[in-house]
Amino acid sequence: MNKKPKIILSTVDVQRLETLLDALAPDSFPGMAELEEELERAEVVEPHRMPSSVVTMNSTVKFKVEPSGEEFRMTLVYPGNEDASGQKISVLAPVGSALLGLSQGDEIQWPRPGGGMMRVRIIEVIYQPERSGDFLA
Amino acid sequence: MNKKPKIILSTVDVQRLETLLDALAPDSFPGMAELEEELERAEVVEPHRMPSSVVTMNSTVKFKVEPSGEEFRMTLVYPGNEDASGQKISVLAPVGSALLGLSQGDEIQWPRPGGGMMRVRIIEVIYQPERSGDFLA
Repeated sequence: MNKKPKIILSTVDVQRLETLLDALAPDSFPGMAELEEELERAEVVEPHRMPSSVVTMNSTVKFKVEPSGEEFRMTLVYPGNEDASGQKISVLAPVGSALLGLSQGDEIQWPRPGGGMMRVRIIEVIYQPERSGDFLA
Repeated sequence: MNKKPKIILSTVDVQRLETLLDALAPDSFPGMAELEEELERAEVVEPHRMPSSVVTMNSTVKFKVEPSGEEFRMTLVYPGNEDASGQKISVLAPVGSALLGLSQGDEIQWPRPGGGMMRVRIIEVIYQPERSGDFLA
C-alpha cells in the first residue's frame, strides 16, 4: 500500500458523491468502500475556497506519462457522462476514483493495456469549475 | 513491466476497435499506442470459435479482489455505452483496455481510490456474446 496523498474535496462534490454512493448497492464496483473512506478522510472546503490546483468533479486535467513524456488530457465526470472520445473518465472507474482530490504534481499508477503500469503525473488542472465560477446546478 | 498474458480477440471486435481507434486523434488517451499493439499481437479467431472463458466486447465478468475475497461484476463496453451504475467499463479506459482478451483465472492490477493497487482475478465470464450466439449488428 502506497502512502496516501492528501486529498481536497468541495462540500458540493462530497454531497453529490455521497448521494450517488448511497443510491448504489454495496460493493457495486471494486474500490467502492475505499472511495467512501476517501470522502471521510478528505479535507473538505467550500467551492469558492477550492485551491485552483486540485482535481475536482468535471475538471479537465493534463497528464504526462513518465518516462515517455507523452501528454494527455482527461475530464473527470459523474458516471453516465462519459462519451465516445475516451477522454472522459468516471469517478467510479479505476483511476477516476484515484484522481479525485489530487493536486498538480501528484502521480498515479495507470494500468497499461497488455499488462504493467504507467506512472502518470498530473501536470496541470486545465479547467476547474470552481476556479471558473461554474457552480453547476 | 509484467509478463504479457496471452490475449484472444474476435475478428469482429478487432475490426470495430481498429475503426474506433482510427477515428480518434493520436494519443487521445493514455495507453492508446499500447492498445493498438495489443490488437496486433493478439491471437484472432472467428466469433464462433471464441473460447467461452475469454473476455470479449460486451462480456460481463465476475471478479474477485485478492486477498479480501470481495466479488464484483463488470461489463466491458464501447466508449459512450457506460451508464450511471459504475458497472460498465469502457475498453478505452484504464483497466478496461487491460481486460480485453484475458481469460478466466487471469489477474490484473486495479488502482485503488486513495492510492495503492488491488489484485483482481477474473473468476468467471458470466456472459459472453459469442458463447450466447449474440452476434450484434
